[in-house]
Amino acid sequence: MKIAIDAMGGDRAPAVVVEGAVQAARDFGLEIILVGQRGAVQAELEKHDTAGLALTLKHASQVLEMHEHPAAAVKAKKDCSMVVAIDLVKHRDADAFFTAGNSGGALAASLFRLGRIRGIKRPALSTVFPSQTPQGYCFLLDIGANADCRPEYLLQFAIMGSIYAERVLGILNPRVAIVSNGEEEGKGNQLVRETVPLLQAGSFNFVGNAEGRDISWGIADVIVTDGFTGNVVLKLAEGVAKYLLDLLKKEITGRQVSKVGAMLAKPAFDEAKRRLDYREYGGAPLLGIDGVVIIGHGRSDALAIRNGVRLAAQTAENGVVNAIKQGMARYER
Amino acid sequence: MKIAIDAMGGDRAPAVVVEGAVQAARDFGLEIILVGQRGAVQAELEKHDTAGLALTLKHASQVLEMHEHPAAAVKAKKDCSMVVAIDLVKHRDADAFFTAGNSGGALAASLFRLGRIRGIKRPALSTVFPSQTPQGYCFLLDIGANADCRPEYLLQFAIMGSIYAERVLGILNPRVAIVSNGEEEGKGNQLVRETVPLLQAGSFNFVGNAEGRDISWGIADVIVTDGFTGNVVLKLAEGVAKYLLDLLKKEITGRQVSKVGAMLAKPAFDEAKRRLDYREYGGAPLLGIDGVVIIGHGRSDALAIRNGVRLAAQTAENGVVNAIKQGMARYER
Repeated sequence: MKIAIDAMGGDRAPAVVVEGAVQAARDFGLEIILVGQRGAVQAELEKHDTAGLALTLKHASQVLEMHEHPAAAVKAKKDCSMVVAIDLVKHRDADAFFTAGNSGGALAASLFRLGRIRGIKRPALSTVFPSQTPQGYCFLLDIGANADCRPEYLLQFAIMGSIYAERVLGILNPRVAIVSNGEEEGKGNQLVRETVPLLQAGSFNFVGNAEGRDISWGIADVIVTDGFTGNVVLKLAEGVAKYLLDLLKKEITGRQVSKVGAMLAKPAFDEAKRRLDYREYGGAPLLGIDGVVIIGHGRSDALAIRNGVRLAAQTAENGVVNAIKQGMARYER
Repeated sequence: MKIAIDAMGGDRAPAVVVEGAVQAARDFGLEIILVGQRGAVQAELEKHDTAGLALTLKHASQVLEMHEHPAAAVKAKKDCSMVVAIDLVKHRDADAFFTAGNSGGALAASLFRLGRIRGIKRPALSTVFPSQTPQGYCFLLDIGANADCRPEYLLQFAIMGSIYAERVLGILNPRVAIVSNGEEEGKGNQLVRETVPLLQAGSFNFVGNAEGRDISWGIADVIVTDGFTGNVVLKLAEGVAKYLLDLLKKEITGRQVSKVGAMLAKPAFDEAKRRLDYREYGGAPLLGIDGVVIIGHGRSDALAIRNGVRLAAQTAENGVVNAIKQGMARYER
């Protein structure tokens, strides 16, 4: 497995990207191509012991900045690290691409350089989300690639999500649900009401509507929604978790049992945080693109980068792109 | 203050409704009219000491069941407890109406019998939501009355939310934000992008977009969104909180420090639960209707009913309906 990494992408790039890439190369025995400005990346590489690791450096003179308009910048900066790294996948010189850079840029560059899988109308950004399913999470998509969706897009998200859940997450016959404002059939906004009949006719395991609370309670393994709602769901969960953990900490330490209580509760808090921590997964697969693309959080640290690179390798290894290609024909009515 | 209560509404009606109503009459000195089937309500009343309380019973022969189609049932059942109670408000025999029954029915009955405030296009269901604002919560609307919205509706939700936050919650010059999938201006689905210019031109304190995490982090006092997204936000927060508290409990008790840890942590957990507990507020104001309507949770217990009735009284006392009437002219461009 050879992974092309955008070494210049992320709030603390290239330092943490290189650090995470070195860890991934060591821990998972992956071949890694770091793409970015030679001097800057080389300087970071020299801070680590890379002896025996399959790490190479490919120069790219430009950088896509976080504030730039994604589509325009990707078109203008043909030699930026993101585009050069994606082209390695395009030309089969790498099996997968990872970036923690401008996510709009990654979406645009993936669309321009790799294109969509035949038949796919819109790619979807996806993520695992903590939930009381047997495996401890569900797979949520779209989380932000498409703020406005049509029913056909959501049908395809369900198909792609099922394939990913089965192939990469190892969930047999994953249960698929759609986010709605009520469990009962007939509930939903116009988009949901128009999408449900398509999902019912699909040849995957559609189990119906999921209210907000059902997402965490484990009603389904794959949860589809439009990119606006999915983004709100993902970030709200983060906000509520932080609110609650802060509140509990304040209450525990404020109740005069600070030292003992905090000590006793700390491992539990750490475990809860770990479960909710995006860094454990490291990135969001962009599904529907003709190539493996994993987008990490801009705030990624080295651990998140390491895990995101692992996810890229797992996604490539499990043949998700080919499975979606085949699945499109099999799953579509 | 005289509150008309749908004694037959809710999963455990009339028992818990009567119990909560008795508590509200005693604790807040309110006049209460319990509307429902005489025999059933009378039997419940006899279980309590109601000496000296301003409780009366008004007979209504029919009940709107939870499974009935709201609009059709409200039209067909002219003598159901919900309609009869709402008519007391309509005829100024009561200052406010509370129900824990079929919320679609309450919405339909309010629209048919009380009507919208002049100029209001759609009523909105609203609630306080835990957040790190100075007051400890924000005011969120719409949480489910309108699954599909137009920009003008959201503008009016912002106006009504500001008025409610100022009048009833006592928040001076409340900050208003709109739920979006990015903080930056220009982010959003089509509805949000079309609504933002209207909000910017409004004469309330609009502070911009709120991402999911910002809702809990206290970015604004009033958060507007469409009823689909608002419903997902409200229920997801409930789901995430339950997920997290369950996880923490399991971790704490699973770590061999069960007795001590659980004992030390319990008050903190109780406080966190209390903050997230809808029963503390008791109900959701339905704003934009020409009369005070508070809709409680179907699962309400007596405490939730008591607090919902208090909220109905507070909403009436603070002249929210008149303020919205006046505000519509003042706030609108």
